[in-house]
Amino acid sequence: MKFSPLFWPIQLKGNTIHILDETQLPQKLTYIKAKNYQQACKAIKEMKTRAVGQVLLVMYAFILSKRQNKNLAKVAAAINATRPTLSFKFLTDMVLGMEKSGAPLEKSILGFLEMLKEKRIQQAQATANLLKSGDVILTHCNVSGLMPLIAQFAKAQGKEISFYVTETRPYLQGSRLTAWEIMRAGFDVTIITDNMVAYLLSLGKVTKVIVGADHLTLNGDIANKIGTYQIAVVAKYFKIPFYVICPPASKLKSGKEIKIEIRPSDELKIYRGLYLAPKEVKAYYPAFDVTPAKLITKHIYLKV
Amino acid sequence: MKFSPLFWPIQLKGNTIHILDETQLPQKLTYIKAKNYQQACKAIKEMKTRAVGQVLLVMYAFILSKRQNKNLAKVAAAINATRPTLSFKFLTDMVLGMEKSGAPLEKSILGFLEMLKEKRIQQAQATANLLKSGDVILTHCNVSGLMPLIAQFAKAQGKEISFYVTETRPYLQGSRLTAWEIMRAGFDVTIITDNMVAYLLSLGKVTKVIVGADHLTLNGDIANKIGTYQIAVVAKYFKIPFYVICPPASKLKSGKEIKIEIRPSDELKIYRGLYLAPKEVKAYYPAFDVTPAKLITKHIYLKV
Repeated sequence: MKFSPLFWPIQLKGNTIHILDETQLPQKLTYIKAKNYQQACKAIKEMKTRAVGQVLLVMYAFILSKRQNKNLAKVAAAINATRPTLSFKFLTDMVLGMEKSGAPLEKSILGFLEMLKEKRIQQAQATANLLKSGDVILTHCNVSGLMPLIAQFAKAQGKEISFYVTETRPYLQGSRLTAWEIMRAGFDVTIITDNMVAYLLSLGKVTKVIVGADHLTLNGDIANKIGTYQIAVVAKYFKIPFYVICPPASKLKSGKEIKIEIRPSDELKIYRGLYLAPKEVKAYYPAFDVTPAKLITKHIYLKV
Repeated sequence: MKFSPLFWPIQLKGNTIHILDETQLPQKLTYIKAKNYQQACKAIKEMKTRAVGQVLLVMYAFILSKRQNKNLAKVAAAINATRPTLSFKFLTDMVLGMEKSGAPLEKSILGFLEMLKEKRIQQAQATANLLKSGDVILTHCNVSGLMPLIAQFAKAQGKEISFYVTETRPYLQGSRLTAWEIMRAGFDVTIITDNMVAYLLSLGKVTKVIVGADHLTLNGDIANKIGTYQIAVVAKYFKIPFYVICPPASKLKSGKEIKIEIRPSDELKIYRGLYLAPKEVKAYYPAFDVTPAKLITKHIYLKV
């Protein structure tokens, strides 16, 4: 298997964390360097990395902080404060627990990450197993390198599959990241704007929707990039299966308990310095939405 | 009432048609000049104007062509060939009919346009009559100056209303035109990306959806800017009324007979020279979609 740079977008080299700057893709494949947890938190806040990248960044930040004899409880608090919707608490609690147990922290974290890599590969394999040859998959946003991996596993099983990707405004992770990595892996992919989903499905052009999730609650609700909920509603209307590649569940009972992060309106109105709207107009930018379990045909779990 | 520049975006001054260049809004309020029907057709093809602007442009092009002793059947054919989804044939047939009747053509056309203006104002009034104070309206794309007019009529009736507007990718008519003209008229408006509709409706933030239509068929199906269908599906799911401000019906039986225009993929991938996606990726850009009558709560007709 060939891995997308987005599959493992963060690396620890010596005492420096190398962070793939996803905001520069697809134009440039560059890495930002972080030498302490504050710089790591800044990269999270500025959305330089997302999803699995954030998990890796958090874990590597703990390794660095431990080497630097930082107060790990303080590090955990700083990480938890970066973005409201994402359940970093699960991770930070786990690390504080490892530390408390007296086990060698760095080794424990690296062991956890090795297992995470293994399980993610298994999750891609499990997703590929659900596909049929001829499947046309619609996806939204980016599932950190899993789509090209799924395509490769499917191909190895003799299944021919192709993709449609919503561009995923306002950050365009669909066109900039997902379409880029699928194309790079040699598979067929077409981008659409976020408002074309119903029309595309009405034409029978899509056989399955597969998206990721940033948060899974105990009742099966998920939070994912804004726009996911809408696709789920539309998929239900057209009776197209809607699969979700899930992270481990948090301790929240349902999606109603998830706090949705509202981001600055300029992030919607300006793209790379270019105004897409009148400067003074109000804009509303919830970064995520919650898709209720009843709209999800199948959860593909990551069991760590 | 104060009219938005988009309400009557084309003017005939002497022998020159002045075309509001909607692609330059909201940054610049500028007009393109056309001195013959070929230049008018070019402006239509390049989407410098849309909807009612296109109707006006077609009619003024006939007036010019008549003055220039052009073959009007040839003019009609050139106009009909500009864009597949829009029913210019209704208009060109009407003009050819006027000409055949022996009535003075210019006078007949100007009379028709005067009536059209009158009827559009009545249509805005009829829409305002359907609103309640406190209504929050979600709209998509642009209805050529009708939204600010509806807001003013509602206000005159003592009703306080506000708006959400989808940005309407890829041409951003929602943020560039509709939000701009509503804000300019002094009403409350907030833009969202096209993928936020389900989340917004799930929060109970919208009481009515009101959109326009480029084409109405005999069974009540409509074609409108891509994304309209999706909003209708989502509105149905959340039980939010979905109103359509309609043009006169064409002779087609149903939306299935409407040919959807597929536009160049670069229009989706590039915005004002800036690449929003990998250069080589495939992109699919249907300019319109068809919303079936069963998803429409109420048609607001224009009876000309």
